[in-house]
Formats: sequence, C-alpha cells, structure tokens
Amino acid sequence: MKKIAILGSTGSIGTQTLEVVRENGDIEVLGLAAGNNIELLEQQIREFHPVLAAVWSEEKAAELRIKIADTDTKVVSGMDGLILVSVLPGTEILVTAIVGMIGIRPTIEAIKAGKDIALANKETLVTAGHIIMPLAKEKKVSILPVDSEHSAIFQSLQGNEHGAIHKILLTASGGPFRGKREEDLLNIRVEDALKHPNWSMGQKITIDSSTMVNKGLEVIEAKWLFNVDVDQVQVVVQPQSIIHSMVEYVDGAIMAELGTPDMKLPIQYALYYPKRRYLPGERLDFWSLGHLDFEKPDMDTFYGLALAYEAGRAGGSLPTVFNAANELAVSQFLKREIKYLEIIEIIDDCMHAHKNIANPTLEQILETEAATYERINSRR
Amino acid sequence: MKKIAILGSTGSIGTQTLEVVRENGDIEVLGLAAGNNIELLEQQIREFHPVLAAVWSEEKAAELRIKIADTDTKVVSGMDGLILVSVLPGTEILVTAIVGMIGIRPTIEAIKAGKDIALANKETLVTAGHIIMPLAKEKKVSILPVDSEHSAIFQSLQGNEHGAIHKILLTASGGPFRGKREEDLLNIRVEDALKHPNWSMGQKITIDSSTMVNKGLEVIEAKWLFNVDVDQVQVVVQPQSIIHSMVEYVDGAIMAELGTPDMKLPIQYALYYPKRRYLPGERLDFWSLGHLDFEKPDMDTFYGLALAYEAGRAGGSLPTVFNAANELAVSQFLKREIKYLEIIEIIDDCMHAHKNIANPTLEQILETEAATYERINSRR
Repeated sequence: MKKIAILGSTGSIGTQTLEVVRENGDIEVLGLAAGNNIELLEQQIREFHPVLAAVWSEEKAAELRIKIADTDTKVVSGMDGLILVSVLPGTEILVTAIVGMIGIRPTIEAIKAGKDIALANKETLVTAGHIIMPLAKEKKVSILPVDSEHSAIFQSLQGNEHGAIHKILLTASGGPFRGKREEDLLNIRVEDALKHPNWSMGQKITIDSSTMVNKGLEVIEAKWLFNVDVDQVQVVVQPQSIIHSMVEYVDGAIMAELGTPDMKLPIQYALYYPKRRYLPGERLDFWSLGHLDFEKPDMDTFYGLALAYEAGRAGGSLPTVFNAANELAVSQFLKREIKYLEIIEIIDDCMHAHKNIANPTLEQILETEAATYERINSRR
Repeated sequence: MKKIAILGSTGSIGTQTLEVVRENGDIEVLGLAAGNNIELLEQQIREFHPVLAAVWSEEKAAELRIKIADTDTKVVSGMDGLILVSVLPGTEILVTAIVGMIGIRPTIEAIKAGKDIALANKETLVTAGHIIMPLAKEKKVSILPVDSEHSAIFQSLQGNEHGAIHKILLTASGGPFRGKREEDLLNIRVEDALKHPNWSMGQKITIDSSTMVNKGLEVIEAKWLFNVDVDQVQVVVQPQSIIHSMVEYVDGAIMAELGTPDMKLPIQYALYYPKRRYLPGERLDFWSLGHLDFEKPDMDTFYGLALAYEAGRAGGSLPTVFNAANELAVSQFLKREIKYLEIIEIIDDCMHAHKNIANPTLEQILETEAATYERINSRR
C-alpha cells in the first residue's frame, strides 16, 4: 500500500484527493492537516484512520481531541503540527493542498525527509522555487504537479527530453469576465467573481482565476517546475477548459492533454505516476463537442497577468510581493473591504514599492510577505 | 552517421524524407528505390550517392545505368531489386514510402534482416499486419509510423503503458467533400477529388482521402500498429487538420499531438526517435488560430469507411480485398474509366463476393489481390 499525508485535507483539492483514495482503495492515509474545519476533519479521521491529524489553531485542536478521543489518531496544531504531518515516517508522498505561503516550510521539511511532493500549493514554487527545486534535486524527490494545467504539461513532457522543449502553452479559461473591459469591472461584486464557468474550486483561487492572477502564478510556477524562462510560457485562452495545457517542441510538434474538467485526474496521475488507472467520470465526446476556441489573453484589462510576467522575469523576492499582495487583497475583497479592481492596483503598488532581493532566503521571503501585508494594511 | 534506405524515393514521402536528410546533414542514404521516374532518381543519386538504386522496370534501369555511368551507384530492378535495397548491409532504417501492396515483401525481408521500419506504406499492415507485427517482435525491430495520424498516436503513447489505452481518436480532415451527400458525389471529376484542403500528397492517397477509404485503411493500420481492436479506434472529423490524432486513456486523459500540416515532422520523428530535433517550418499560433471544429464522420455517405471497419473487424484476407479493390478502382477512376461513386461500389462488391481466409499466408494475400483485380477487370 502506498502511504501518503495530505496538507489541506478539508479543502477542495484535499477532499478530492480523499475521493481518489477512497475509489482506489489501495492508498493508506497516515496524516491529515486542516485549517479549522474540525467537523469535516473528524469525519475524515473516522473514515481514513490517520496516525496524525493537524489543526491550525490549538483551540480547535483541543476541541477535536475531545471529539475523537475514541480513535487512535493523535492531534497536533500550528506550524509545528503541519510539519509533523509533513515529515511523518512511512509516508512516500505529501499532498500539499494547503492554500497560501503557509505551505512553504512544511514542503521544505517534507523534501528534506525524502518525501515526493504532490504539489497543489502554488505559492511554494512561486515564492521559493529557487530553494525548493535545487533541494528536491539534491534529495532526489519528485515534485508532481497536481493542478490541471501543470499536470497537463507534465503529461505532455513524458517521453521527451528537456532540451527539446521550445515553449509551454499554458491554457486559461479566461474566467467569468473574459471579453470584459476595465470599465465593466468597476463594480464587480464578490458573488460575480465567485462564478467560474468551468471549474469548481476554492474561493481564493476562483477570485484569482477571475483576475487572471491565478494564471500569472501558474506562469511563474511553470518556470520552476519545468525549468524554462517565463517568456517561454505562453498563455492561451481556451474558454472551454478542454485543452488543459500543451508543450511545443523544437520540431514544431505540440503535445497536449485534454479532457473534461475534473481535478481528480491530475490528483490520481500524481499519486500513481507514471501509471494511469481507471478513473470514473464523464468522458470527452468529440462527436458532440462541436468546437474549441482560442484567444490571446487581454493583458491590458487583466494586467495582473502582465505583473506576474514582470515578477517572474525579475525573480528574487518580487514574486513573493506579487503573491502576498494578491493574497491579502483577495481576502479583503472577499470581506468586501476593497473593490474588485483594487486587487490588482494593490499588487501593482506593492511590487513597484519593493526593493527586490535576489535569491532570498526563506526568512527574507517571509519578511517580504510581512512587509507587503504591512504596506497594504497601512493603506486603510 | 545513421544509415537508411528509402523505397519510393521519388514520391511525396520519399522526396520529403530526402529533404529531412538534407536539412539534418547527418544521415547517410545507402539505398534508393523508385518506380519509373529515373530523371528525379538520377538527381537524387547525384546528390546522396547511394550504394544501390532500384528501378521497377528493367528497361528504365538500363537507361539509368547509362545516365549515371560516371557514379559509383549500382542499379538493380524489379522485385529483386527492391528487396536488395531493403536488406542492404549497414542500413539501420528502411523507409517504406512506396505505395501499394508491392511494399509488403520488401518490408518483410527488411525486418528479417533486422532493419527498423519507418512505415509509410499502409498496405503492408492493412493486408499483412498479422505477419508483420509478430515478425517485428521476434526480430526486435521497431515499426515507426511515418504518416501524420499514426505518428501523432505514437507520440501520444510515449511514457504510457499499453494497458492504459482506452481508445484511439484518429482524426480526419473529412476531405474535399465533407458535408456532401451521396447525390452531390454522382458527377465528381478527377480534378475535384484531387483538391485536398490541407495536405499536399500523392494522387492515389488524395483520392483515398476524398472517399475516406484512406481513413479506413488508417483504422486497420492503427489496429496492428497499436495492438487494439478496430472498434477501439474512433474516427473524429477535425477539418482544420491541426489535431493530428489522439489517445484516450483509462483515466479519461486524452493526449494529442497538434501542429501545422507538415509531413516532415512525422518523417523526422521516425528517423531520430525517440529524440526530437529542430525542424524548420511554420509554427502553429494559437493566438491567431481562432477555433478547431469536431464532427462525427458521415459513414452513410462515405461508406467506404464503414466497409473498412467491417474488413478490420473480420480480419483475415478481407482487408486485402478492401485494399486491392480500392487500389484498382482508384486507378480506373484516375484514368476516367469509372465514376467516382463506383470506387466504393466496387470495394463493396468485391468484399461481399469474397470467401474470407483466416490468417492468410503472404501467397494467399497476393492470390487474394490477384483474384480481386480479376473480378474488377471482368466487370468491364
């Protein structure tokens, strides 16, 4: 039995990972970590019997300990708890499905402990790719992408040499506001931005998808995952989200992965890589599909994407500013504290106020994050 | 230097293979075989300096010997000549770009001599797949597909296990008569049928593309190349010919190869497999592509495709009847001896008059071909 642990088990990717585990029946879940949704975590503990469960707040952890006193699962809390789940002896793969920069340290510790990483936390590579990728190489662990686009790229790279890559074609749905101009976006409400046309995802990533900041983070992530320049990553709007991404080779051949939108596919591919297994679900029917559309992204209206290229090109601590500014701005938007277009204005402001640090340490990354938050909070 | 020989060097695939050789500059051409175009063959001999050249008729061979008396190339003729080129000592790959069942014996002899086959002669597998594939396995030689669709499938299979294949999605342009009904095809002239919307190819294959018999041959070929049932091969009409074909896996993931229509890509991929090399040529631009369409093939109007499935399902000598009847009928159509729709009527008639032989020997295959020709000729 393959043994895994999951950070972010009660979120969108976490619960779908557990569905994949349930359907396959031959993976053992040794560790689970969640934020504060201890009700769902309790159910997961009762179904999957992990050795260890981590909850973010010690208060909630204490509550959970009482609830599951009849089980053998030990409950830990905070960053120490997250790290304990990440380095749990016996696990082969750590699924990092936690959202935000909180995922970086546990990921580093897991790599040091020799775990393969099924990576769904994009902030890890965006902000610390220069630390993570060399460390993974040194420790000979695999970084297996779990999101749909990077998994498609990863699948499209199989059987090919790195030197044969010409560019990566990262597809984007364009989100709910595709085709809109800046003036149309002035009064966007939280409800509008949470309606994604193709994918069912968490709230933060749904907002990021609507601003195309998510695509920008993916561009930077692709740079690290696949060892290319950001300018070798071309974003192609493919509104039906059927082509999940592509790789163009030096001979002009383009390899692509297509399918119905189903996050369980990249999750399962990462867990069993390089093998494929049957996965229940709707199949793509080309006889009834009709057509697929392709567009150039509108980087004037969605200039968060242009800012991502800028951050990715500069490297250093600038991608951390891009990401941290977005993280806080989106949370303020979700709390209705700022307007929709202010999300990108805030990122822009923070990036251009930042003095870039080349090759930042983890401490400098976290300091940059804190400084970015401080700048945004002092705006109010 | 990689060493190759080419059967059919003056045809469409043959000349493009030589372009690839010219552009790369690190492949040595030891043997060339052509039909009767000795003018072009002479040029090729003077440029590539093969050890051996084969011409179909001894008369033309004698002519060529005089023309190139100043070179070191030896000229042979007939089936014996073709086979001599196929088994030439020192060659690693035989490119079988000859059209028709004439390619079967040389291919078998090349496999016996341990040559990898870059296969552009689809009749070989259609009629003798049950002989070729086990022989290739026994002799540990690779059968590398050279046509666009099978190369796309082959590329889409890299890094995956055979057991993970769910089905093959063989794309078709639909040809120049896509969308037409039987009544529209009554008075089709040779000139109409020779206009292919996307690909520049030889005359016979262009007619086959217009009737979708070419796609039918490809379905049967795919069955042998990729060891699947014909009913696991689904034809998808993709009029822009951008998606060259796809593979659907058990997990629902579909891997595809896309690109501008350029036969040099599959040729080069086969010659250097598994490596990719830079190939000059137009690249696909997704920002200006617009859209891709998908349709179900109209197997009522283009019932040659339905007949191919019937032949492929039955196996034995029936695919030989399908292929031979088509071969002669198309040549009669090109000579304006029969009408366009008679091509398929003739195939239908021959198939349904045939008593199928399971697992035919090469002799039985050739007898079936002869009997099919005889039946068609006796119609007149």
